[in-house]
Amino acid sequence: MRYDTIYDDILKEIKPSPKNREEIIMLADKLMNIILEHAKTLNIEVTCKLVGSVSKKTSLVNKADIDIFIAFPLDYDEEKLKEYGLHLGKYCIDEVNGKCEKKYASHPYITGHIDGYEVDFVPCYKIKDASQLKSAVDRTILHTNYVQKHLTDKEADEVLLLKKFMTSVNTYGANYKVSGFSGYLCELLILHYHTFENIIKEAANKWHNEFKIDLENYGTCSNYHDPLIVIDPVDPNRNVAAALTMQKFSEFIAACRNYLNNHKIEYFMDKKIEVSKEELINEFKNRNTHCIIISFNVPKRPDDVIYPQVNKTMNALKKISQLNDFKILKSGYYINKDYTSCIILEYEISKLPVLKLHHGPLVKDRKNSQHFLDKYPDAYISNEKWVVLSKREYTTVEDMFNDLIRKENINKLKLGKNIKEEMLNQYSLKTITDYLNDADSEEYPDLYMYLHPSYKLSR
Amino acid sequence: MRYDTIYDDILKEIKPSPKNREEIIMLADKLMNIILEHAKTLNIEVTCKLVGSVSKKTSLVNKADIDIFIAFPLDYDEEKLKEYGLHLGKYCIDEVNGKCEKKYASHPYITGHIDGYEVDFVPCYKIKDASQLKSAVDRTILHTNYVQKHLTDKEADEVLLLKKFMTSVNTYGANYKVSGFSGYLCELLILHYHTFENIIKEAANKWHNEFKIDLENYGTCSNYHDPLIVIDPVDPNRNVAAALTMQKFSEFIAACRNYLNNHKIEYFMDKKIEVSKEELINEFKNRNTHCIIISFNVPKRPDDVIYPQVNKTMNALKKISQLNDFKILKSGYYINKDYTSCIILEYEISKLPVLKLHHGPLVKDRKNSQHFLDKYPDAYISNEKWVVLSKREYTTVEDMFNDLIRKENINKLKLGKNIKEEMLNQYSLKTITDYLNDADSEEYPDLYMYLHPSYKLSR
Repeated sequence: MRYDTIYDDILKEIKPSPKNREEIIMLADKLMNIILEHAKTLNIEVTCKLVGSVSKKTSLVNKADIDIFIAFPLDYDEEKLKEYGLHLGKYCIDEVNGKCEKKYASHPYITGHIDGYEVDFVPCYKIKDASQLKSAVDRTILHTNYVQKHLTDKEADEVLLLKKFMTSVNTYGANYKVSGFSGYLCELLILHYHTFENIIKEAANKWHNEFKIDLENYGTCSNYHDPLIVIDPVDPNRNVAAALTMQKFSEFIAACRNYLNNHKIEYFMDKKIEVSKEELINEFKNRNTHCIIISFNVPKRPDDVIYPQVNKTMNALKKISQLNDFKILKSGYYINKDYTSCIILEYEISKLPVLKLHHGPLVKDRKNSQHFLDKYPDAYISNEKWVVLSKREYTTVEDMFNDLIRKENINKLKLGKNIKEEMLNQYSLKTITDYLNDADSEEYPDLYMYLHPSYKLSR
Repeated sequence: MRYDTIYDDILKEIKPSPKNREEIIMLADKLMNIILEHAKTLNIEVTCKLVGSVSKKTSLVNKADIDIFIAFPLDYDEEKLKEYGLHLGKYCIDEVNGKCEKKYASHPYITGHIDGYEVDFVPCYKIKDASQLKSAVDRTILHTNYVQKHLTDKEADEVLLLKKFMTSVNTYGANYKVSGFSGYLCELLILHYHTFENIIKEAANKWHNEFKIDLENYGTCSNYHDPLIVIDPVDPNRNVAAALTMQKFSEFIAACRNYLNNHKIEYFMDKKIEVSKEELINEFKNRNTHCIIISFNVPKRPDDVIYPQVNKTMNALKKISQLNDFKILKSGYYINKDYTSCIILEYEISKLPVLKLHHGPLVKDRKNSQHFLDKYPDAYISNEKWVVLSKREYTTVEDMFNDLIRKENINKLKLGKNIKEEMLNQYSLKTITDYLNDADSEEYPDLYMYLHPSYKLSR
């Protein structure tokens, strides 16, 4: 069974018009010509290539950023490459009256805001194959060439369907925040399975941990242990799906099954969350757990810098909780647009007893038995060892965190490096109900997703 | 350094007078003659032997029970042996105007109350060595012969010191309630170490799990994995210390160390417990735990029948608690003289949240994923598997036990067989404070020992 009519309707919505594509191609050609000519006057030997989804006909409507790679010969040293790259980009942007912005990836590049488009000018080395690789961006031109050579126009449309579906069920994007499927990974999946519908069926039924795809039959799959292994056709020593987490891999499988049960067109649309403060408060109250929110500012840095640090901070808070016997039922975090972050920690209980069972040395070990008894005169024997009911350091999580998040103690937590300073500066610890009473309604969707993590996987 | 003066003083208190011993030996001889003569008239071929601590000069004052073993030839069948044994015992008791009582060990025997003594008449087979063993009691005569042959009078006194010390620190007795050191084990320890003082020093410093003693060098120690391994000199295939628990083994070691630090004569006296209701209530309150007592009647049966059943019941209640996430900090039980029993269960907390984390199938398993989702529509993905916050069956231990201790549910607990009926008949579940308000003062020492399990190990 095919659903071509549905897909045709969807493609009408998500595929850029030929006119729009032509406009972008023409703009890119114009910019590349400016660079090439200016480079010639400076005696710099470069080639330019439009890369990215636009160049491969796999860009979704209104998502068409322009990526222009400026390729230098391998004998240029890195300093020169950076310097010439930035200069050529800047020159080009100025020529067309665009606005410059410097950005950083593995090395710095420049972005221009030109005629309503965001155009990245990225310097790289001109390489023939992956063995000549000097930095991660050098691979991009090889990727573009490979997809341009193998992907048919029909298949490019299937990529659009896949990207849109993945976006709607929140599994698209190789950035840290999502840790899902990259655009290039979507293209390779279509090259392997040919149609969107095939991928859905195969993922729903056959995908499992360490599922392997090796388009060029390099035989290098066994080098990897990841949820999904897709060997890069231009580099046998790279798993294109390395950044995909087990979480997003599993969520995609679940979403595929849901979609197979009911081919709703809504799977290609964002699923809105509409929830009121009262509904959220009630849901949390009904869980009857001890749920707290710790909120603090985060530095004004890119998502891929902040998200890992907040995640690391959350894990540190969970670990110290467990060490102190506060059992965690569920946890999560989100970062607001105003650079504040919230870590949600949901505990089984709000208070532990004063005493805890503390295990001591074996009775046969006379020396350590004596030390233990000197320290704990109330120790008693449990089979072959000493135990004692000793006083806990903390009986509530509030006491624990308020004691630990102080200059003297904060190094006992392994926090993200920028987060430590921010938390010492200011943090708030509230029960979820107290927090919700003052919370901005912009946060409601994040809190709703915390309560219903599978919400976006079905329609 | 020796402490002979102390030990002489102690021996004056604990060693039966020669007159007393002579009286017992004469009574035993008289009784054995009656049996032998009566047997002759009946044409039954038997020999008699006084066994037990009296016969070995290792009985403590006022603890001298008389054990007379009636040994039959190996070709008598078991039925005959039982019948003749009971008949001869009964005849003898009647002859001296004693009072009869039938008892059971591995086979039935008869006890007479004669001239203020308790005299056991135990039928057994006359064997030359352990290879001819037909029942456990057959070994007793071999044990008596061995000790009589090897133990000097001086060493017999050392056995008295050891038995008295062990009694005072509550590690003496092979019965289930104590699960400590038997009298025969004490004798073998003295045969190995020669003096009480030596045992104390060696136990304090050198004993460890699987400590081995093999008086006759049989080389069979490695067949056993027990806290202490003492090969029976009359049976290479028996560990005399098999019934000794790790708990009592460790407690004895700890008591030896305490005694070595300070040779107080009080180590040879019972340590009294004097505690008031108010002190007990305060101590429990200060622990701030959730401590309950479940009390019920036990059948009027011997200790070695009841104690294992109550212990099994306690373990069943602990297990079901843990299965339901009620974490136990400490537990214990005791049985009162009026055949009521109390199980103490001390929990970290009194109430669990409504929700608990419930783990489901792997996402890759499509069929079971569907079953799980049908059952729990709110399930969500955690890495490679489904989880859900599902409702707990019980949020308090009171709810749990009151639901389980009902005819419909009680088989979910693995209770001691006689205890099940008793609990269904009647049980009470109270917090320790409520229980203490009505408790008999006879129970205070047991509750005090629960709070201070090491109390008797030091002076």
